[in-house]
Amino acid sequence: MEFDLTLSIAVLERTPPTLRTLLRGLDPAWTDATEGPETWSPYAIVGHLIHGERTNWVPRAQLILAQGPSRRFTPFDRVAPFRESQSESLDDLLDEFARLRAANLTTLAGWRLTDTELALAGEHPEFGVVMLRQLLATWVVHDLGHVAQVARVMAKQYRDAVGPWRAYLPILTR
Amino acid sequence: MEFDLTLSIAVLERTPPTLRTLLRGLDPAWTDATEGPETWSPYAIVGHLIHGERTNWVPRAQLILAQGPSRRFTPFDRVAPFRESQSESLDDLLDEFARLRAANLTTLAGWRLTDTELALAGEHPEFGVVMLRQLLATWVVHDLGHVAQVARVMAKQYRDAVGPWRAYLPILTR
Repeated sequence: MEFDLTLSIAVLERTPPTLRTLLRGLDPAWTDATEGPETWSPYAIVGHLIHGERTNWVPRAQLILAQGPSRRFTPFDRVAPFRESQSESLDDLLDEFARLRAANLTTLAGWRLTDTELALAGEHPEFGVVMLRQLLATWVVHDLGHVAQVARVMAKQYRDAVGPWRAYLPILTR
Repeated sequence: MEFDLTLSIAVLERTPPTLRTLLRGLDPAWTDATEGPETWSPYAIVGHLIHGERTNWVPRAQLILAQGPSRRFTPFDRVAPFRESQSESLDDLLDEFARLRAANLTTLAGWRLTDTELALAGEHPEFGVVMLRQLLATWVVHDLGHVAQVARVMAKQYRDAVGPWRAYLPILTR
């Protein structure tokens, strides 16, 4: 499927309410659980999504749209949520994510992007030339990847509890 | 984590609204998409979840609780949704799933299950002896596996659109 702005926004606007519906008020036995050392809990994942709203997607899109002398992105700090949001409740983080995402989608809509603008390029610190529409497609896939991750982290807490059914549940061994 | 009935119900009651929040009103470009031949779309996955509510979890639990002469489960038909629900809209299927799940959770709560009952056994056609609490844990993990699958199927529609970012998005190659 080719990149489509309207289809992308439809997913981006659903991610905060989807995570809120899945996680709000849920016991920390689920939301603080991980897949083992050096892996993320649902709580940490929401913190990571907040960090992306603040520092990644829209700031990088702005850098591309400005087409200034340097279009090189600042590297994205993927472990920042561990430092920033340890003291807030998960419900507060879910609200914060929803607020930031709504503001970012308002900014995105305000740009009224044309196909020409969607083809403008920036410079990724590792990949080199990337187009605005690839950045926006990545925003969508990044969301969906973390929704899947939240479900997988929770599922794995019942790895032993399912007994022999484990053989039919590929999510437990992923 | 050991099986816990209250923690399990908290997840089971969240699955229908989570899928509804993610999928309701979404374009068929997302909801009819698959991962390739012989794989399921989000639409088919919701159909499969409905079929499980009707024929799998609660009927099998009832068979175990009855402790009659045969405790052998009827095999679960995992491709049934392809035959049953082709003509309904996804929004109708989401409503139907929510209705059936709510009824099944009312039934489950009405049993007021004790630890002794949770340890009662049934006979799985392939695995042999399985306990009620393993069946209920599997219900939870099965839900979460399909939530992750819906997100993954959607993400893969942008496999090419993300360009070089594909290297950072493991969900695209799962």
